[in-house]
Amino acid sequence: MKIAVAQLNFHIGNFESNTEKMLKAVAKAKGQGADIICFSELATCGYPPRDFLEFDDFIGLAENSVDQLRQAADGIAIVVGSPSKNPVPEGKDLFNSAFFLADKKILAVQHKTLLPTYDVFDEYRYFEPTTTHEVVEFKGKKIALTICEDIWNIGNENPLYKICPLDEMVAQNPDFILNLSASPFNYKQADTRAEIVGSNVSRYKIPMFYVNHVGAQTELIFDGGSLVVSPNGKIYEELPFFEEVVKVFDLNQVSEGTKNSPQPKHKYAMIQDALVMGIKDYFGKLGFTKALVGLSGGIDSAVTAALAAQALGAENVRCILMPSHFSSDHSIADAVKLAENYGMPYDIVPIKSVYDSYLELLQPKFEDKPFNVTEENLQARIRGMILMAMSNKFGNIVLNTSNKSEAAVGYGTLYGDMCGGLSVIGDVYKTEVFALAKFINEEKEWIPVNTISKPPSAELRPNQKDSDSLPDYDILDEILFQYIEKRTDPQDIIAQGFDEKIVKKTLRLVNINEFKRYQTPPILRVSPKAFGMGRRMPIVGKYLS
Amino acid sequence: MKIAVAQLNFHIGNFESNTEKMLKAVAKAKGQGADIICFSELATCGYPPRDFLEFDDFIGLAENSVDQLRQAADGIAIVVGSPSKNPVPEGKDLFNSAFFLADKKILAVQHKTLLPTYDVFDEYRYFEPTTTHEVVEFKGKKIALTICEDIWNIGNENPLYKICPLDEMVAQNPDFILNLSASPFNYKQADTRAEIVGSNVSRYKIPMFYVNHVGAQTELIFDGGSLVVSPNGKIYEELPFFEEVVKVFDLNQVSEGTKNSPQPKHKYAMIQDALVMGIKDYFGKLGFTKALVGLSGGIDSAVTAALAAQALGAENVRCILMPSHFSSDHSIADAVKLAENYGMPYDIVPIKSVYDSYLELLQPKFEDKPFNVTEENLQARIRGMILMAMSNKFGNIVLNTSNKSEAAVGYGTLYGDMCGGLSVIGDVYKTEVFALAKFINEEKEWIPVNTISKPPSAELRPNQKDSDSLPDYDILDEILFQYIEKRTDPQDIIAQGFDEKIVKKTLRLVNINEFKRYQTPPILRVSPKAFGMGRRMPIVGKYLS
Repeated sequence: MKIAVAQLNFHIGNFESNTEKMLKAVAKAKGQGADIICFSELATCGYPPRDFLEFDDFIGLAENSVDQLRQAADGIAIVVGSPSKNPVPEGKDLFNSAFFLADKKILAVQHKTLLPTYDVFDEYRYFEPTTTHEVVEFKGKKIALTICEDIWNIGNENPLYKICPLDEMVAQNPDFILNLSASPFNYKQADTRAEIVGSNVSRYKIPMFYVNHVGAQTELIFDGGSLVVSPNGKIYEELPFFEEVVKVFDLNQVSEGTKNSPQPKHKYAMIQDALVMGIKDYFGKLGFTKALVGLSGGIDSAVTAALAAQALGAENVRCILMPSHFSSDHSIADAVKLAENYGMPYDIVPIKSVYDSYLELLQPKFEDKPFNVTEENLQARIRGMILMAMSNKFGNIVLNTSNKSEAAVGYGTLYGDMCGGLSVIGDVYKTEVFALAKFINEEKEWIPVNTISKPPSAELRPNQKDSDSLPDYDILDEILFQYIEKRTDPQDIIAQGFDEKIVKKTLRLVNINEFKRYQTPPILRVSPKAFGMGRRMPIVGKYLS
Repeated sequence: MKIAVAQLNFHIGNFESNTEKMLKAVAKAKGQGADIICFSELATCGYPPRDFLEFDDFIGLAENSVDQLRQAADGIAIVVGSPSKNPVPEGKDLFNSAFFLADKKILAVQHKTLLPTYDVFDEYRYFEPTTTHEVVEFKGKKIALTICEDIWNIGNENPLYKICPLDEMVAQNPDFILNLSASPFNYKQADTRAEIVGSNVSRYKIPMFYVNHVGAQTELIFDGGSLVVSPNGKIYEELPFFEEVVKVFDLNQVSEGTKNSPQPKHKYAMIQDALVMGIKDYFGKLGFTKALVGLSGGIDSAVTAALAAQALGAENVRCILMPSHFSSDHSIADAVKLAENYGMPYDIVPIKSVYDSYLELLQPKFEDKPFNVTEENLQARIRGMILMAMSNKFGNIVLNTSNKSEAAVGYGTLYGDMCGGLSVIGDVYKTEVFALAKFINEEKEWIPVNTISKPPSAELRPNQKDSDSLPDYDILDEILFQYIEKRTDPQDIIAQGFDEKIVKKTLRLVNINEFKRYQTPPILRVSPKAFGMGRRMPIVGKYLS
């Protein structure tokens, strides 16, 4: 038996394009003699469809897509993820289902059992969990059909769940396992996933074909890396990350388990590739080709522009340099050098004349109050407005350049440097931005070394340094990591040896700046805990603040 | 037996203030001879605590608060909602619990059974549902303890749930029902709630004391309106809306059911009072007292300013008039009149000089492209920046003035008129804004009648009218209501008699403007389906767009 793993990039709600893409893959796999082709979770409608699932019309379009695939299931079986209606009134209206289509019929439907409802996941908002598990018989083989999280409760040891779907299915003696996933990227996920898939196979001693979604849907990036694992626990094949692939495997060969070929997973290579795909798909799926980046000469905008150039082509990334009277000469020189290294078009638009016109207008209203954050924010906001004006005039998208450390402590200006359509590095701590810059520079000095080596500064007042108002980034980032990723108690962070005053100040800053993050552009998620849909905090809360 | 209903305004995470407030209420109720005092759902930590629940330290503080109340439960029993740890590893880490504290002991703990996980609710993200239901015995009475949603599955007819907690408890012959709620306001909710409470009482023929939270937590407004219902189904008392109340009831008198006194519920009176509380608590809980509103002379900013004046006092609402060369004379006159009617301080800050300085700077970059949305947005953003600068200089909060119709179709400028700390009328359709304005004017012409009667215009280009680019608001709002509140299929909206082209254009605008709404300030929720946390949509989706 030959099984095709179809790791494809779907577009939420774009049924026409998703179906067409699947039909092409079916034809290709059939041409290569595949008996079965397997697509990823909710492939018809794209993952995550979120509240679109509450529209009957949307579900109807998904059903229509399944029906088109059913008609194409001729000489090949098609396994596809799609929402389906719960026929009984009791429970949620929908199931998250895997359809097994063969001989132009629906041979079987297996619903998802374990519904992640944490972090970025809201599946119990929409779906009823199933408690029924039946293997599918096709061409003399028995197949255990599972959907994503269904394989994440090995031997019922995951405290979140009470059912282990595979324990139930394996009692029916399946020959192999198919898993339809939409498992979002973070820099640890590929390792975790290989471990989970491996542990399942070790437990059940049958081959598994794990088919992941690839592509970005706004903040969530799906890295692919689909896995074919032999009964001996060896990775027969790990499909490429961040690429569409349709590949046919021979079940006998997989069962023999003579290959072991996992891919290397370098943290910053993975983050770079994820962010590049994140940018590319955000633009592609919205129908845009060109980006604008405000280049300051600092490392955040440099890394953002570098990633944008990789994603969209340097010629499609227009850089705007907006020096003020507080900008140092080296900032402009570094920014120009970066643009020239990549061949990105750039403009220099000094902001002083506009800044002066604001001050002239507002000074009489300011009642002789001293220079403060107001004037700093004015500069940042003028830059934001210039970028947005250029974006409006030329129909391109402004990329936000804030990093995760800034976003965490509110070291940024709403509607100023916090503007943009997409935050590229908003889930990358400042210390990680440095590491990423060095990774990008590994083969060539794309990013001027001076941009990397100089002390970080917002340059919004004379001789300003980030370290004037924030702890050193290596300390700050570690405290933030403990609080945000690990949710460590404040007293336990202090017990790790950090200064109590700095810890309390940092956590306070994180919590009082929820109002700013609420209005941040969507942030490409690359860590296990990103700001955005996976971290839901009250604004008027008064905890540690 | 005497039962005190404590309808109080808690602050998320502010354990000190919440506990102190409860201890005062306990003393007061004890002084009035109450045997039991009942607080609302999750009263210790405030509702909804959201992801704060994932911090052990936060749960520890809630436990500490329960412990303080336990020590005060001396001569009076205290019933209080608080999160509690799930002692077994299986399932979610927490329960949403009601503690029954008496004789300085924890007499009983009843966990919540039905966990809303839809719209603005994420309870299954955090809580394990219980399946155990035991009535509490105290002073010879048996009490059925329920938490909010637990009473919303009458006779198991709510398809979302499979257990009816009260059916199980009533089998144990309780004398009355206590319900601890945090049930957020929408303009229909008070009626729905009275109906649900009434239906429960009709089914079980015992009195119910329904204790609701009151107060606003950013976007969610809790209206109070706690209910005491007699076994004959009559509303013995409905506590005031939008006010803190601690009131003691005699169980015998309630059981007799001689009173029937529901309150009037006028849609626009309720919306007005909800929005006033929403503003008041947003400022109060964040520690601010003063607001800024950009007054255009139009109805949206007029209504926003009027509500702010009611909430904060007119002297605390500073109005900024920012005319451009496209502003009509009457706009300025109408805005001035409004400010004067209330006695709000105002400034006139014409934007032309700054606008010209932007054009001078950007014109060379614009490559002779014609006047378009860029220049319109520039004006809106200059106004946004002026407001933000004044906000930064004087430490007050900018109120956003966008209405729901604009937010729906993206008729607004990001970082311009879409800026602010809080959106006051972002859940009020334009036609409802008119109705609200008329309601505000019922006793006196607070809002100049010309502001209400003139055709809406953004005044961003000569002789512009909203109707140049949008359908008439009475048609637009009805289509939006069908799509947003009702989730009616496009073909069914058209079948209601709306023009197909207008329907398709409208729904497309709604869906392609998700990127703008993502960066909108939090919106005070007054309808059953508001933009924000209760409506979660993909940005890169391609559905109806």
